[in-house]
Amino acid sequence: MRTNTVKLHVGSDITVRAASACPIVAMLRPTSGLAQWLSSETYAFDPWVPTTEHVDVYGNLCQRMVVPQGEMRLRVEATVETEPELAVAPGAPYVAVDSLPDSALLYLLPSRYCPSDKLTSKAWQVVGDASPGYGQVEAIRAWINSSLSYRYGSSDASTDAAATLEQGAGVCRDFAHVGIALTRALQIPARMVVGYLHGLEPMDLHAWFEAYVGGRWYTFDATQSAARGGRVVLAYGRDAADVAFISNYAPLETVAMQVWVELAPPPGPLPPAPPPLPSASAA
Amino acid sequence: MRTNTVKLHVGSDITVRAASACPIVAMLRPTSGLAQWLSSETYAFDPWVPTTEHVDVYGNLCQRMVVPQGEMRLRVEATVETEPELAVAPGAPYVAVDSLPDSALLYLLPSRYCPSDKLTSKAWQVVGDASPGYGQVEAIRAWINSSLSYRYGSSDASTDAAATLEQGAGVCRDFAHVGIALTRALQIPARMVVGYLHGLEPMDLHAWFEAYVGGRWYTFDATQSAARGGRVVLAYGRDAADVAFISNYAPLETVAMQVWVELAPPPGPLPPAPPPLPSASAA
Amino acid sequence: MRTNTVKLHVGSDITVRAASACPIVAMLRPTSGLAQWLSSETYAFDPWVPTTEHVDVYGNLCQRMVVPQGEMRLRVEATVETEPELAVAPGAPYVAVDSLPDSALLYLLPSRYCPSDKLTSKAWQVVGDASPGYGQVEAIRAWINSSLSYRYGSSDASTDAAATLEQGAGVCRDFAHVGIALTRALQIPARMVVGYLHGLEPMDLHAWFEAYVGGRWYTFDATQSAARGGRVVLAYGRDAADVAFISNYAPLETVAMQVWVELAPPPGPLPPAPPPLPSASAA
Amino acid sequence: MRTNTVKLHVGSDITVRAASACPIVAMLRPTSGLAQWLSSETYAFDPWVPTTEHVDVYGNLCQRMVVPQGEMRLRVEATVETEPELAVAPGAPYVAVDSLPDSALLYLLPSRYCPSDKLTSKAWQVVGDASPGYGQVEAIRAWINSSLSYRYGSSDASTDAAATLEQGAGVCRDFAHVGIALTRALQIPARMVVGYLHGLEPMDLHAWFEAYVGGRWYTFDATQSAARGGRVVLAYGRDAADVAFISNYAPLETVAMQVWVELAPPPGPLPPAPPPLPSASAA
Repeated sequence: MRTNTVKLHVGSDITVRAASACPIVAMLRPTSGLAQWLSSETYAFDPWVPTTEHVDVYGNLCQRMVVPQGEMRLRVEATVETEPELAVAPGAPYVAVDSLPDSALLYLLPSRYCPSDKLTSKAWQVVGDASPGYGQVEAIRAWINSSLSYRYGSSDASTDAAATLEQGAGVCRDFAHVGIALTRALQIPARMVVGYLHGLEPMDLHAWFEAYVGGRWYTFDATQSAARGGRVVLAYGRDAADVAFISNYAPLETVAMQVWVELAPPPGPLPPAPPPLPSASAA
Repeated sequence: MRTNTVKLHVGSDITVRAASACPIVAMLRPTSGLAQWLSSETYAFDPWVPTTEHVDVYGNLCQRMVVPQGEMRLRVEATVETEPELAVAPGAPYVAVDSLPDSALLYLLPSRYCPSDKLTSKAWQVVGDASPGYGQVEAIRAWINSSLSYRYGSSDASTDAAATLEQGAGVCRDFAHVGIALTRALQIPARMVVGYLHGLEPMDLHAWFEAYVGGRWYTFDATQSAARGGRVVLAYGRDAADVAFISNYAPLETVAMQVWVELAPPPGPLPPAPPPLPSASAA
Repeated sequence: MRTNTVKLHVGSDITVRAASACPIVAMLRPTSGLAQWLSSETYAFDPWVPTTEHVDVYGNLCQRMVVPQGEMRLRVEATVETEPELAVAPGAPYVAVDSLPDSALLYLLPSRYCPSDKLTSKAWQVVGDASPGYGQVEAIRAWINSSLSYRYGSSDASTDAAATLEQGAGVCRDFAHVGIALTRALQIPARMVVGYLHGLEPMDLHAWFEAYVGGRWYTFDATQSAARGGRVVLAYGRDAADVAFISNYAPLETVAMQVWVELAPPPGPLPPAPPPLPSASAA
Repeated sequence: MRTNTVKLHVGSDITVRAASACPIVAMLRPTSGLAQWLSSETYAFDPWVPTTEHVDVYGNLCQRMVVPQGEMRLRVEATVETEPELAVAPGAPYVAVDSLPDSALLYLLPSRYCPSDKLTSKAWQVVGDASPGYGQVEAIRAWINSSLSYRYGSSDASTDAAATLEQGAGVCRDFAHVGIALTRALQIPARMVVGYLHGLEPMDLHAWFEAYVGGRWYTFDATQSAARGGRVVLAYGRDAADVAFISNYAPLETVAMQVWVELAPPPGPLPPAPPPLPSASAA
C-alpha cells in the first residue's frame, strides 16, 4: 500500500430481532488488504454469544453465531489507514484471458445477480470505441452513473443486473451488479465489493466493484460522478449473494442500524514506552 | 473410499474449431476423490499446445490453453475405481446451519442458475412432510424425475432453475439446477457435479447434484428413476457456470464429440517385478 | 468455543533498533480461533510505515513491513474471550495415522528444532505404559516439567530438542520443542504455539504445544505444574522457526519490551443504540 | 511452460514389506507444473487397497493408504512434457525480502535438515563476491559440486546440512540440503525438489533444489557438473522431511525398487476421431 494514507474511523451498529434462534454468518470485520491497513477494531455484541470466525474462498473473514430469540445488538468499529484518492489508470490495457492470473478466472463467470452471459450485446454497445481495458470499464461505470436512476425501493433481494437494466433504476448494489455483469461480458474479471465510503450521502454500508485490467484490480463506483477514495473494504465476492453483511438462516428483522465513517482524530501519543532492557538483545 | 469398487474406463474425444486463437479453460481430467480413485489417465491433444494446470476454489483441476486457429482435438481417457452402488441414507438428518462445516456454507447461497432465494415456497411444497435432511432431498429428486420432462432443446446456456420449473422440461444440467435450487431453499447445502455415469443412455457427459445431510455429501440424480452408482466426477461447483467442461473466451465450435464409459477389463498382470535389492533397506 | 469464557486484555510493547532498513515479518496480531474470540485490538507503530498482512500456510496472520533505520516501536493490544480452564481429556485415545485428518499429517514430520526422528527410544522410555494418546502426551509433559530445569541463558536460537535433552535445561520454547519432538516420535501430531498466558511469572510472550489425540487438538504446557487456562494464541507452527513474533532479515536489536496479560475490566455499557428504523425491514 | 519440450516416460516400481499393517503417505504421482505437463500416468498397486489423495500445504499430491501385512508392490508410471534444457539466468538479481511474494517467505526459514541459521558465515565465505542473486546460488551449487564427495553410505536419514559439510560427503539429498541451507543463509528462498532426471547415473529417484531469484524459481543441481534439463518433479518441500516418496508410520522394508526415465517414443496417431456432429454446435 502507499505511503500517503488517510485514517478513517468506521463503524456499524445494528440491532436485529429473531422470533426464534437464528444462525447467521456476518462479514462485519475488515481485514488489512491491498489498499488498507487495519489499525484497530472492536467487535461487540449484546448479549454475548459464542462465535467462531473463518476465512471463506474469497479471503473474507466471516463470523458465525446464533442470534438468540429476541433482540441482539452488534456494534463493530474499526480504524483503518486507506488511500485518500482512488488509484486510476486510464490507459491500463485489457489483459487477454490467457494471461490472467489463475485466481482472476472465477470473476469472469456469470453469477446470481450478474448474468453476464445475457448481456454481451449491451456491453459492447455501452463501451463503444472506448480503449480496451480500463477505458471500457470506466465507460461502463460512467454510463451507469448517467443512465440509471438511483432510487430506493426500485429493487429487492431478487433483482439481478438484467432486471435493473430493464427498469432503469436501482441502488448501489444494483449499480455494482450492472457494472460487474457488463464488464464480465467483455471478458474482463469483475468482482463485488462491500464496505464503507467516506462522505457517502446518506451514510450507509456501500457496494461498488473492481475490475482486473493492466495487471491489477482497480476500483469503480457507478454511484459516484467522479473517482473517490476514502474506502474501507469489508468483503469481496462474485456478487451480493457472497457478501451480505449478515446472511440469516431463519427469519431476522433489522430493527435499528447506524453506520458511520469519519476522519480519525490524529492519534494521541502512545503511552510511555517500557524502559530499555538491561542489555539490549537481538530479536 | 470403500473396499468394494468397480473399475471404469471413461473418456471424451472432442474436436473444436476456432475462427481465431481462443483461450479456454477445460475441466476434463478427473482426480481422486471421496468415492473414486484415479488409476490411470491420458490427456492428449492434436496439435499440442503449451498448457498449464491449476486448482480452482472448488478443488477442481483446470487446464488452461489457447486453441489455435483451425481445428483442435482433445482426447482424455481415465481408468477409475469407483462405487458400484450409490451410498444412500434415507434417515440421514438435516444439519442445522450453525453445525455445518465452514466449507459447506458456500453451497447455501444462490448462484447464476440456482436462484434458490426465489423458490422457497416451491421447495416446501415439493417436500411436503418428508423427513428433514436426506428425506427432503430425495423427495425433491423424485419429484423432478416424475414431474419434469427430459427434452433436448428445451433449454439453453441461459436457462436457470426458475425457467426450467416454468417450462416443465430440461436436460440433465437443468434437472440438477432445479434440484440444487430447491435443496438450498431448505437451507441444505447443495452443489453441482459433472462427470460420467456408467450406462447412461444416450451416452454423454452428465450432470447431477450432491447435498450435505447427515454429516457428509450424498449424491442425487434427478434424471434417473433409481439410485445408481458407477459415477466418475470431473468437477464440482455452485452450478453449471463453474463446471463447464470447456469455458471458451472467443467463438469456438464443437465439431465432433464422443463420450464413453465402460467396465475396465480386468487388469493384466503387472510386468515382472524388479529383482530384490541386494540387501533390503528400510524406506 | 464454549459459553463459559474469561475476557483477557493482552499486549506487547516492543522497541527495536535497526542499523539500516530491516525487512521484518511479525506475528503479533491474534485472530479468533477454536478456543478464543477476538473482541478488540489495536496495532500501532511509531513511526508509521506501509504494512501488508497475509495468512501463512498455518493460518497465521503475518505483518510485513520494513523497519527504517533507527528505532521503531510496535505496540499491539487485544481483548480476547478465552477459556478460563484448559480442556483436558485423560482418556482421549491415540488416533491411528490412517485416521488422522489430512491437515494433521504435517505435524508428524520432524522439523528444525524438533528432530523427532532421533528421539524414538527416548519417547518410549518417557511414556512407559501411559495410555496411548492423551495419557502419553501428558506423561511427556509431566516428565519435562519434573526432569528439565527452567533456566534462562541455557539455550539460544540454534538449540534444538535433542540439545535441550542433553543439557537438561531450557526455557519455554525449549520445553515445547522437547514436548513436540517426543510426541511426534510416538506418531502423534504435535505443533508449536506461541501466545500469552495469564499469570505467567515473570510475564513474557510464552510458548507451549498442542497434540492431536481423541479427534482434536489439546493444549499441553511443560513449563506449568498443572493444566492452566487463560491463554491467547498468537501463532501455530511446526516449531519456533515458524512462529517468531518478529523474523528480521537484517540486524535488529530489541531495545525495550513489555508484555501484559490482565483480566479485562467488565465492559461498560455500549453507547446508546441507534434509534429504531422507521419500519423494521428484513436483513 | 515453453513451446519447446521433450516428452519423457518415467516410472518407479517399488516392493515394500510390512510386518504388520503400515499406514503410509506416498508422493509418487507427478502433477503438471511450471515446467512440466502431465500427458498420461498409471498408478497401480498389488494388492489393491483403498487409497485417498489430498494436496498438502506445498501443493503436492499425496496418496494415503495402509500397506497390509506382507508384501505390496507400487508401480507408478508417467509420460510428461518437460524442458529439455534448464532455464538459467546468470544475471538474475537478488530479490530483497520485502519484495518477495508472500508464498516464498516460508522457504527462508530453517528446517530439519537445513539449519541455515548456523551457516551464515559459511555461506558468505562460499559465495565470495559472486553477484547477488542467481550468481550466488550458482556459486554455492558449483562449490558443493567441486568440494563435496558423492559417496553412498556417507549419510543416513538423520544427517543434516551441517553434518554433511563437516564430513565433506553425501548423496543427492545431502547436496540439496547443503545448497538450500547456504542459499537461505543469504536470505534467498530455497526449496527441496524430488523427482526424476533423464540420464542420471545410476538411475534412481533424485533430489535437487530451487532458489527464488530474479522474480521466479530456478533449478539448481549440485550433483551435476553442468546445468541439465530433462527433469520431472514429484514434490516440493522445505527439505527431505516433507518430500519422502514414502513416509511410513510403522516398520516397512523396501525389498525391490526400480526407477526409469526414457525418451517417450513419438506418439502414434490418435485413434480415429469421432464423426462430426450432425450440426456443429457452440461449446
